[in-house]
Amino acid sequence: MSPTESTAGAAPAAPASAAPADGGAPAAAIAAREGILEIAGSVRLHHGGALDGLRVAWRIAGPAEAPVVAALGGISAHRRVYSTEPTAPGWWSEVVGPGLALPAESLRVLSFDWLGGSGDTTGPRGGAAFPAISSYDQAELLLRLLNHLGIRSLRAIVGASYGGMVALAFAERYPERVLQLVVISAADRTHPMSTAWRTVQRRTVRFAIDCGRPAEGLKLARALAMATYRSPEEFAARFGGAPRAGDRGFVFPVEEYLVARGEEYAARYQPDGFLCLSESIDLHHVDASRIFTPTVAVGVREDQLVPIGDMRALVARLPHAQLHEMSSVYGHDAFLKEAEQLKPLLARLPGGVR
Amino acid sequence: MSPTESTAGAAPAAPASAAPADGGAPAAAIAAREGILEIAGSVRLHHGGALDGLRVAWRIAGPAEAPVVAALGGISAHRRVYSTEPTAPGWWSEVVGPGLALPAESLRVLSFDWLGGSGDTTGPRGGAAFPAISSYDQAELLLRLLNHLGIRSLRAIVGASYGGMVALAFAERYPERVLQLVVISAADRTHPMSTAWRTVQRRTVRFAIDCGRPAEGLKLARALAMATYRSPEEFAARFGGAPRAGDRGFVFPVEEYLVARGEEYAARYQPDGFLCLSESIDLHHVDASRIFTPTVAVGVREDQLVPIGDMRALVARLPHAQLHEMSSVYGHDAFLKEAEQLKPLLARLPGGVR
Repeated sequence: MSPTESTAGAAPAAPASAAPADGGAPAAAIAAREGILEIAGSVRLHHGGALDGLRVAWRIAGPAEAPVVAALGGISAHRRVYSTEPTAPGWWSEVVGPGLALPAESLRVLSFDWLGGSGDTTGPRGGAAFPAISSYDQAELLLRLLNHLGIRSLRAIVGASYGGMVALAFAERYPERVLQLVVISAADRTHPMSTAWRTVQRRTVRFAIDCGRPAEGLKLARALAMATYRSPEEFAARFGGAPRAGDRGFVFPVEEYLVARGEEYAARYQPDGFLCLSESIDLHHVDASRIFTPTVAVGVREDQLVPIGDMRALVARLPHAQLHEMSSVYGHDAFLKEAEQLKPLLARLPGGVR
Repeated sequence: MSPTESTAGAAPAAPASAAPADGGAPAAAIAAREGILEIAGSVRLHHGGALDGLRVAWRIAGPAEAPVVAALGGISAHRRVYSTEPTAPGWWSEVVGPGLALPAESLRVLSFDWLGGSGDTTGPRGGAAFPAISSYDQAELLLRLLNHLGIRSLRAIVGASYGGMVALAFAERYPERVLQLVVISAADRTHPMSTAWRTVQRRTVRFAIDCGRPAEGLKLARALAMATYRSPEEFAARFGGAPRAGDRGFVFPVEEYLVARGEEYAARYQPDGFLCLSESIDLHHVDASRIFTPTVAVGVREDQLVPIGDMRALVARLPHAQLHEMSSVYGHDAFLKEAEQLKPLLARLPGGVR
């Protein structure tokens, strides 16, 4: 293994007492290290096949010697969990950071770009064939990262959505390497209705690839995905207005929103990376009865993708778990938005993360 | 107006006493008349524009002189509500017919092909521009049909999904022409989440038209629509099995189901007819406070397209309405499937349809 590293932000993180009274992030730069782990040889994959010369893009941010928490998000997440640089915010900047729900001033936060996605970790490119990726494969990459970085054990994995699936897969396979899980909006397997929505998304992207217009397919898929990420309650409150006449029929307020989100997404992500990770969600299937790591599971009653009943069933099967049910108009996206509701859950991790 | 008529089935419907004890339909043919109403001159449309030479394909089935009930279904419904010919079943054959929940042996059941759809009523063809169609426009066609057929007043309109929207629009505009409404899974306006799913469907179809493969777009749109028509509970019960390896990644059981439904649909319906009627649903917006016709509203708790809260809000605004809430794993499709639950509601129409 010949890692490549860089250091972003030379100053140590500000101590907690320097955080503004309103709980916002301090202006001081975060001590962050980034790198690429290059894995020599071949990595065998859970669903068959193998990948050679695999590269894993990682980032760890926080004070040296602080306990390490892995923070893993949805299939659109990446190694930059939080940042104080406004030009490059992290995907979880509303929840993770100094003074926030996950108090980054006293933790090192580790993450990585997903295998098979659009980031700097190995993924499908240019339409070339790429094997199916399992949440177990992502868990193996995390294990290899821990070995590479000399981290004996994670204080916790806080995983939401796909990241919660990977957290469960990791704890089943490598229980000695993590003390605690926080699993938000992710179960031991996916719900068939949720699979239904994703299969339509994938078929739309494949159809668009066949038509030579992959970005258009990705826009449509993301528009549909956005509807499933949020709740009917939120859409009713935001998009009750009248439609306007467009070039091809009427355009509805919710439609403009979804199209805008689809266009943003298609500008940043690759269609084949989306296909790979979307399928990986649907292939996720761990054995909850073999996951002995203490787990706080967080379910959202309005989540259309991971129904609260599936979170209850997960916790019933996990030997050492408690379920916290919350309500949020953000539905599946609650983990990105509900910092106040998550704060007591993240602060009370057994052993304490602070 | 120069109507064209045909008569299907010469024998009168069997009397109720001739129905099999199990409640199934008798073998006797139904007395049915079909025709095309050709409207001379121009019909002005609710959202602007007008249509010339409009043709309306209608059907009325049941004993002569019996009270007339209009039965109106979703955007895929058509004039053939029920039939005893197994080669051409009606779209509501599980609910409407001699001895069934809506007891057709003592009623004449009227319906018509939707304006703007894929049937024999005027609709968009071959990609030519076609105006936006309102539920009020469909209501006006029904009024013209009553005038043409010499029906002074409908005993009831039983409308489900889009047909329920048209029933509400009709009662607001022409209260003297109908005594009673039964409105199943349809509110005074559509829910923005429901609009979200349909706008993605329409954009997928338009994209496929642009790519020269309209049927492929219609398949994808129908696959998505089917997921919204049913409930997570049904899909969880039916599609929990393992995926199989396909040519382009894994294929999931729910995916095979949705694709099959999409292919069936694309073989029978026109993309531009789908676009027109799908948009018409989202444009639907009636003033419930001005609908004085006594109404039985039926809401399904598992309906993803018409949330039960919207049915409650509708009934709160209607001056003379009662709400019946039911549960069904068929979700929005409950009106097609739950004959036993609908039976007491359809039998107790004030004034009695029997």
